Amino acid sequence: MRATYLYGAGDVRVIDVPDPKIEHGTDALVRVTRACVCGSDLHPYHSKPATDEASSIGHEFIGMVEEVGPEVTTVAPGDFVIAPFAVSCGACEFCRAGLQTSCVNGGFWNDPALGTGGGQAEAVRVPLADGTLVAVPGVTESTDEGLLASLLTLSDVYDTGWHAAVRGGVRPGSTVTVIGDGAVGLLAVLSAKQLGAERIVLMGRHRLRTDLGRDFGATDVVAERGADGIEQVRDLTDGGSPVVLEAVGHLPAYEQAVGVVRPGGVISRVGVPQYDEAPVGFGSIFGSNVTLTGGPAPVRSYIERLLPAVLDGSVAPGRVLDRTVALDDTPDAYAAMDARQALKVMVRP
Amino acid sequence: MRATYLYGAGDVRVIDVPDPKIEHGTDALVRVTRACVCGSDLHPYHSKPATDEASSIGHEFIGMVEEVGPEVTTVAPGDFVIAPFAVSCGACEFCRAGLQTSCVNGGFWNDPALGTGGGQAEAVRVPLADGTLVAVPGVTESTDEGLLASLLTLSDVYDTGWHAAVRGGVRPGSTVTVIGDGAVGLLAVLSAKQLGAERIVLMGRHRLRTDLGRDFGATDVVAERGADGIEQVRDLTDGGSPVVLEAVGHLPAYEQAVGVVRPGGVISRVGVPQYDEAPVGFGSIFGSNVTLTGGPAPVRSYIERLLPAVLDGSVAPGRVLDRTVALDDTPDAYAAMDARQALKVMVRP
Repeated sequence: MRATYLYGAGDVRVIDVPDPKIEHGTDALVRVTRACVCGSDLHPYHSKPATDEASSIGHEFIGMVEEVGPEVTTVAPGDFVIAPFAVSCGACEFCRAGLQTSCVNGGFWNDPALGTGGGQAEAVRVPLADGTLVAVPGVTESTDEGLLASLLTLSDVYDTGWHAAVRGGVRPGSTVTVIGDGAVGLLAVLSAKQLGAERIVLMGRHRLRTDLGRDFGATDVVAERGADGIEQVRDLTDGGSPVVLEAVGHLPAYEQAVGVVRPGGVISRVGVPQYDEAPVGFGSIFGSNVTLTGGPAPVRSYIERLLPAVLDGSVAPGRVLDRTVALDDTPDAYAAMDARQALKVMVRP
Repeated sequence: MRATYLYGAGDVRVIDVPDPKIEHGTDALVRVTRACVCGSDLHPYHSKPATDEASSIGHEFIGMVEEVGPEVTTVAPGDFVIAPFAVSCGACEFCRAGLQTSCVNGGFWNDPALGTGGGQAEAVRVPLADGTLVAVPGVTESTDEGLLASLLTLSDVYDTGWHAAVRGGVRPGSTVTVIGDGAVGLLAVLSAKQLGAERIVLMGRHRLRTDLGRDFGATDVVAERGADGIEQVRDLTDGGSPVVLEAVGHLPAYEQAVGVVRPGGVISRVGVPQYDEAPVGFGSIFGSNVTLTGGPAPVRSYIERLLPAVLDGSVAPGRVLDRTVALDDTPDAYAAMDARQALKVMVRP
């Protein structure tokens, strides 16, 4: 089959690889209907040394189950499924607590430790299928393209935005600032709106994206960064935002979050940090009793909660997917997202 | 009057200064009954440059009101009062939310911006007396020494331990690890016990202190630090502690907290950080969805909650005060605490 591999910084190739097969009784084989490129895929796209071994890539996909191992009970051939970005057993302490990203038996796509390929491919072997996949009855490959896109966001970015909002403690009447106008930031806006936030300030400077943010529920947009951006948000929120959702992952975005948060407030991070250390001392978050929370979203625990509004069309998170390419053109998807010509690109095998 | 001043690292002196006077209508004048030396006083005691101007010191005291300004309504001459380590107006948004350390009108003792002296003195001018002081009827200067000591801990260390536990989300049945066997750590143990924690692991290596920790409710003591200490706590807690209370403030204690916390858990810091930056990336707290919270305790919001059990003797937080000196011997108190010959020293003017 064809599958996407990263060979080094800027070097994405779609190559022929052996077809995946059922290896364990708990596996399922999923033919990919749609996949997409994540903002977090751009991090290795920028930094992977060419001397490292090429690796499969992609962790967001939806598809049809083709075959299952003898121990699989919750999905069957012909089922449409959403695959979260983490594999999870569904049975361990952390899965039962809704923290599937810390599953003691699971792992992440493309990680040699897990031994599976990536979602930007024709098919994927899914380990621990019962604990990982969510079947959605009634969906087929001929389902409306917009709905497929929205279902695809449930494999990562929508739940990640939701996780930010949930961990940030957003509730009816909340004032929230969202840092970042990428797909996750925009879906953090949508999530905050769904959870009842009254005031949602979106920090982003790409007009097309922030306009979509306004559609999703942003009440204010601040395009400036740095000290100017902080001052504007502090003015808009009368001294600081009680909840800040950080959806970028670079240190300046963290510093922005520290700058706009209100004493006693919460910074909820879901952008994968591209830094190890950051200011957490008296002058940044300690002195003002600011809470720092967040992490990788336990997607598997949110899909059922978010699915009904997607299926009945009351939300359309798939609007963040603004371009579609064929699988063999996946390298163009990376280039377009890297050049910010596309917000998020869907891949159709 | 006599008052304690810090002249530089290791150089504490008790000197003659002008008597404080009522300056504003909202002031009270408090004659100090007991004060004490805080672990956080040792930080400038270690680091203050001798070239800086000498400054008054001390932020924990109880005393008798001698005089009040015309606008003061809640305390009167002759009242016994507890003074929190932060001055607060009681009326602003943050005071009403129980976050008096972020009061927009208040401040901290010994801060020139606030213009008041420190607690290690014969008397103190207390600004914003209504919002700051808590009167305790029935207490006099001849009240039992043990009870006075316990009341004194309500000016800082007991509430600070309590804040750690509250911010850490301790509830009935919790498993909690407390890092640090100083006064705050030991009172974090007591607080966790009061909030219903079932398992309380105390990390500390001073036997006399950890024995007191056991009296306060610690079920286990781990004396080792670093990787060994982390491994022991992870073993005791079957893979990590869901709640970690960090009561030291030095970077190794933070790293210890990161090492022992369970995925999805909380690190609640109340030791004043002696560092600006610390690890908060994927490998430390982000990847495992660990929440980092805490800050300076809003003492004023906790005193009424904690007072009844102190007054009826069901808790004796004053046991952390293991030595008493006369005011003129305050320099000895610093030296004894610095040499770890005393846990926490009470000062009797």
